[in-house]
Amino acid sequence: MENQIIKQLKELREKTPLVHNITNFVVMNNTANALLALGASPVMVHSVGEVRDVVALSNALVINIGTLDRKWAKAMIKAAKKANKLNLPWILDPVGAGISPLRNEILRELLLLKPTVIRGNASEIIALHNSNLSTNKGVDSTQSSNDALEAAKALNQQYGCVVCISGSIDYILSDTRIAEVHNGDPMMTKVTGLGCTSTALIGAFLGLNRNPFEEAVAGVAIMSLSGELAAQGANGPGSLQLALYDTLYQLSDEQISKHVKLKCYANT
Amino acid sequence: MENQIIKQLKELREKTPLVHNITNFVVMNNTANALLALGASPVMVHSVGEVRDVVALSNALVINIGTLDRKWAKAMIKAAKKANKLNLPWILDPVGAGISPLRNEILRELLLLKPTVIRGNASEIIALHNSNLSTNKGVDSTQSSNDALEAAKALNQQYGCVVCISGSIDYILSDTRIAEVHNGDPMMTKVTGLGCTSTALIGAFLGLNRNPFEEAVAGVAIMSLSGELAAQGANGPGSLQLALYDTLYQLSDEQISKHVKLKCYANT
Amino acid sequence: MENQIIKQLKELREKTPLVHNITNFVVMNNTANALLALGASPVMVHSVGEVRDVVALSNALVINIGTLDRKWAKAMIKAAKKANKLNLPWILDPVGAGISPLRNEILRELLLLKPTVIRGNASEIIALHNSNLSTNKGVDSTQSSNDALEAAKALNQQYGCVVCISGSIDYILSDTRIAEVHNGDPMMTKVTGLGCTSTALIGAFLGLNRNPFEEAVAGVAIMSLSGELAAQGANGPGSLQLALYDTLYQLSDEQISKHVKLKCYANT
Repeated sequence: MENQIIKQLKELREKTPLVHNITNFVVMNNTANALLALGASPVMVHSVGEVRDVVALSNALVINIGTLDRKWAKAMIKAAKKANKLNLPWILDPVGAGISPLRNEILRELLLLKPTVIRGNASEIIALHNSNLSTNKGVDSTQSSNDALEAAKALNQQYGCVVCISGSIDYILSDTRIAEVHNGDPMMTKVTGLGCTSTALIGAFLGLNRNPFEEAVAGVAIMSLSGELAAQGANGPGSLQLALYDTLYQLSDEQISKHVKLKCYANT
Repeated sequence: MENQIIKQLKELREKTPLVHNITNFVVMNNTANALLALGASPVMVHSVGEVRDVVALSNALVINIGTLDRKWAKAMIKAAKKANKLNLPWILDPVGAGISPLRNEILRELLLLKPTVIRGNASEIIALHNSNLSTNKGVDSTQSSNDALEAAKALNQQYGCVVCISGSIDYILSDTRIAEVHNGDPMMTKVTGLGCTSTALIGAFLGLNRNPFEEAVAGVAIMSLSGELAAQGANGPGSLQLALYDTLYQLSDEQISKHVKLKCYANT
Repeated sequence: MENQIIKQLKELREKTPLVHNITNFVVMNNTANALLALGASPVMVHSVGEVRDVVALSNALVINIGTLDRKWAKAMIKAAKKANKLNLPWILDPVGAGISPLRNEILRELLLLKPTVIRGNASEIIALHNSNLSTNKGVDSTQSSNDALEAAKALNQQYGCVVCISGSIDYILSDTRIAEVHNGDPMMTKVTGLGCTSTALIGAFLGLNRNPFEEAVAGVAIMSLSGELAAQGANGPGSLQLALYDTLYQLSDEQISKHVKLKCYANT
């Protein structure tokens, strides 16, 4: 499967897919920079009056509810509907699922639009699953990604989407397969928005428009590997963030085939 | 008092207080990263429809009016009221106080809600004090922190809050005590939003919920010391910003006891 | 003309012009940091209720429509009108011109207010020129800056503004003169918002309020040179972004006179 990832990254760098991001204020700059470093072309547009025009130009859509309000939610829903109409793949990042009734309500609306992929941490995936969404502590995960597997299976069955759970082990789940990525570094939790970056990278691979499960695996594996490599020799989270862009930009076939730690098995 | 700071930092890293930030667009990313590097858990939520829910989950609230508009102000006021109801400590950063009637009007409303702590530069603290707020030049300070001491005393007497003035010497003032922090580096004024970062770090210490004056001293001292250490060997403001996160992440008891320059005396 | 640039930079660092930015969420932090590193004083205020007050305090205004919506557009128009009333120079960055009817409509309104300077990439300048603005692919340029020269001439004739086109060669055009800047590095396209940074630096030079063409040349030349120097030895776009601030902060007369590659000729 590592060879598959090498092939996908090569294709991405050649095609430079246009990735439309409706994301949160905290990570907009980082998201755009990570997409550029990877080889994609980011566009960040959120106005209700133009999101549909931009979806129509794009190869994939990323919706991240981090700093949501009702007006932004309206734009997200318009964009997701347009994506569905055009058969454009889109990914949902349910940041902070469970921390407020407003957030849960908007997430329910977005789920009904059947995202191609969902990516969150364990707490978010569990909260997203519970219809009476339980109270969550902030945006950092307090549960392990393994605990969230059952919730991910349920979301997959209900909405048909690929579900990614970020954590010390990352899981990617479709109706038939589960992949595990054993890359990453604990220091990555000390940089804000690296989960959001992972979501955006998956979005970029979705822009290749072949197989959402394999594209999600590529996005997650490349993110966790790049974070792991960037953490080596970093003096702290500042150095890690900077090195992440450099690593994404320079990532070689050899690094992928040598360092990606991936397991894939049937979802039974 | 340095030993007190070491103890507070240790407690903060163990408890990872959840700090709710309603802050400006310019610094959101930096604020979140500085809080993570210090050892706190940031959450950035501003929607009128959910700020109260998030305040209820948090250990402290940070309100920073940098890129304010009326809608954001409404959310800030709702959040501050909820914090008061729950006896949650909150800190106000009056960015750009005095540059417009709108800003002054909203600051007056926020002051009436009696922030636990206020932190600004000298120009902002002086402008905040004047009820007929005088015209201020932008957001960078044009007055020395010493000049602002009288304004800080008046604000403390009127609203009961601890007041912090950032500058080449930082002052922290309660009704009974004044602390001076003689750390920092002039290059820090060439990185945007380090004042806002100082406010957020104070917010994290307030989340320990023991003594606002001592928590404000810890936040200011750790910020100015970390900036000073980060400036050593920095080639410019880019390097300084990156090294700040690494320094906050790695800051040791020894660095604190050896390098913090703190004076404390009675407020007479 | 290099000596002219040295003189302008010296004057800018002495006067620290206050530059009011109404810009997009993606680049706010970077813009503020680049202006500080250069030696200017940034202020980022966008509320309809206070933009006019802040324009009145400022030396120049920067309007960048990157993440625009109708509410922000209203503030931009108010600010530009106020700038015109006060004879304050202002610069327009037409990010993503042509990607939606909404964007084109708002750009037409802004053009009628006759910006002192316009800066965009080739695709944006061409799209801005076409009244039936053609569809553009995202915010990254797909056309060479040379192709956009005719569009720039037409914009200059119609609105009287200086027009800057960023690309592997940068062009700056007035009714009588054209300058070419042959600095920069291809890796600069892998960092988000460096075009926006160029706009902001031009804004800072406009704050000197002498000659918009020469100020635009200084801004473009210093941006492209600093990016070029920052790219030397950078391992990727992360390092480049950091080194850009350090370079702007340290830029010496010698570096300017030795490395700026500038041609200037008559616009016939």
